[in-house]
Amino acid sequence: MTMALATETAQHGTRMGIIDCDIHNSPRPKALHSYLPERWRNYHERFGRRSYAGAFYPKASPNAARRDAWPPAGAPGSDLDFLRAQLLDAWDIDYAILNTLIPVHNSIPDYDAAMARAINDWQLAEWLEPEPRLRASIVVPCEDSELAASEIDRLGADPRFVQVLLPVRTRAPLGQRSYWNLYEAAVRHDLPVGIHFGGGSGYPITGAGWPSYYIEDHAGMAQAFQAQLISLICEGVFERFPTLRVVLIEGGFAWLPSLMWRLDRSWRRLRDEAPHLQHLPSDVVRTHIWLTTQPMEEPPKPAHLLQVLDQLDLVDHLVFATDYPHWDFDAPDQAFPFKLAPQVERKIMAENARALYRLA
Amino acid sequence: MTMALATETAQHGTRMGIIDCDIHNSPRPKALHSYLPERWRNYHERFGRRSYAGAFYPKASPNAARRDAWPPAGAPGSDLDFLRAQLLDAWDIDYAILNTLIPVHNSIPDYDAAMARAINDWQLAEWLEPEPRLRASIVVPCEDSELAASEIDRLGADPRFVQVLLPVRTRAPLGQRSYWNLYEAAVRHDLPVGIHFGGGSGYPITGAGWPSYYIEDHAGMAQAFQAQLISLICEGVFERFPTLRVVLIEGGFAWLPSLMWRLDRSWRRLRDEAPHLQHLPSDVVRTHIWLTTQPMEEPPKPAHLLQVLDQLDLVDHLVFATDYPHWDFDAPDQAFPFKLAPQVERKIMAENARALYRLA
Repeated sequence: MTMALATETAQHGTRMGIIDCDIHNSPRPKALHSYLPERWRNYHERFGRRSYAGAFYPKASPNAARRDAWPPAGAPGSDLDFLRAQLLDAWDIDYAILNTLIPVHNSIPDYDAAMARAINDWQLAEWLEPEPRLRASIVVPCEDSELAASEIDRLGADPRFVQVLLPVRTRAPLGQRSYWNLYEAAVRHDLPVGIHFGGGSGYPITGAGWPSYYIEDHAGMAQAFQAQLISLICEGVFERFPTLRVVLIEGGFAWLPSLMWRLDRSWRRLRDEAPHLQHLPSDVVRTHIWLTTQPMEEPPKPAHLLQVLDQLDLVDHLVFATDYPHWDFDAPDQAFPFKLAPQVERKIMAENARALYRLA
Repeated sequence: MTMALATETAQHGTRMGIIDCDIHNSPRPKALHSYLPERWRNYHERFGRRSYAGAFYPKASPNAARRDAWPPAGAPGSDLDFLRAQLLDAWDIDYAILNTLIPVHNSIPDYDAAMARAINDWQLAEWLEPEPRLRASIVVPCEDSELAASEIDRLGADPRFVQVLLPVRTRAPLGQRSYWNLYEAAVRHDLPVGIHFGGGSGYPITGAGWPSYYIEDHAGMAQAFQAQLISLICEGVFERFPTLRVVLIEGGFAWLPSLMWRLDRSWRRLRDEAPHLQHLPSDVVRTHIWLTTQPMEEPPKPAHLLQVLDQLDLVDHLVFATDYPHWDFDAPDQAFPFKLAPQVERKIMAENARALYRLA
């Protein structure tokens, strides 16, 4: 199968029709205010959020932005015209999916819920209405899954919202029952749940105390994805919600084959601990999990990335993302260190996402 | 290189001379008492340890033992004659390295230090003296690195102690300076530092709160290894101690290629955060890190494990271990799902460990 993934000969001519599954927008100062009820607008102005929100880089940039992504006025990701020109037009993108990364968890639950609602209404009015190539994830106050489910129910019928967005670092492992109302609502509206790099659990990322460097947080985030996947599988989330689809966004994927092997081994030898798990964990992954391409692991030998793709055996569940306007943006023509076979390229760059997000 | 790792034809005849790099012994009830000073013997009897020590399985077994490893009297790993017959003689083992897993951290520092000292003296008198095929790791109170360094200095000149033993779950990431006295002492005595599955940091293993199932702890422990490796590299431990050798024990290794790729990428793009890091992280790994074979990841296609070995490019740093008497014991003749090329097999089964631990 390895050889079928790549090709030696360049193929050009037909238009690709890219779908970019992870871009980031951010509000101009006070842009959210008109979407907040007075109670929480006042609170937001006077007190704001104090809880640990996780690590950001670069520090001065509100959206971890690459340097050329600053529009003439305002912060990266805050100007629709600039984003149209720099991303949608420049790369001839059919659809791009907004994942707004403003933290709305671990503060006052009603404040979190009001902020999530304001963000979603702002996305609808100022991004989705004026630009038909954009789709968005529903931002939810994930640590209160009933409030989160209400927000999903409020917007789930609007086809411009194509996903429910969670951070990968949460207060408890995402398989636990406190989150199940949220999954139930997502399934009710046939929306995938996207789990994105970032967030802050209040716990250290390592499981062995607090690290010192940003590099440690950055290279360690893949461990948070592993933890969440283990939890989702072991707690039986996919047994309870057999139509649930989960997208791991900006977490890489080269760590996944070895995790599937570990979990399959544990399941075979320890399954009397968890008799509710009826399926081999790797089968659960291949049924329920999607992955974005960015940031792709970059082995020094491209052949090793092909091996990983072969081990993964998930070519129908890999979806392309640029991560615009982050500093580690992947350009569509340079995402892979080899030329993909044309049918594989079409799947990863567009077809898989079209099916996943039910896009026309 | 992949093809050179495995062979199609069985090779027999010459004696292998196996070195088993991870076996576990445990004291009979009260066996440690005569090695404890009165102050701490009384404390151990009356109060004992209360801190979170991590997860164990099977619950009823003091050493996570396989069912046939119970000697006629006492607990698994507590009877030298039984261990001789069941392991050393049965598999014709040249050397086996004892890693005693009694927790000696996160309690009263002087109690931890007294317990470590008692364990080491018990190992010396009751295991290393009577059985010349055994070697042992020095058990240290790792959360106080000055006390740990004293214990290393007390025993480091005895060639029967071949390693310093740490748990993979510690109170802080192991790269941090609070642990550096310990590394300095290890380097002073030319002893590798072995980091073994287990331990308890007091923090959840996930970086996203507390999981529910033992399977989650078991499959998640590889993430603790990843966290420690990231920390050791990012904090500059190997820049400060260029002769330090670290052995990752019972952590698997299929997760390591993708971690090296992530770290190399972070280092190339973010190294102005950590200008003290002069070397590519994957070069640091290949210079300073050793890995035991057990528990080896078990992909459904053995070819995928060969790919991992090729990606790893660390065939001189892989050392065989049975993990006797644990329930997931690897028999020497079944450790790999394919026949290794003879020169590779000799390295992994014995030569690498002989060089690492300076064995005759």
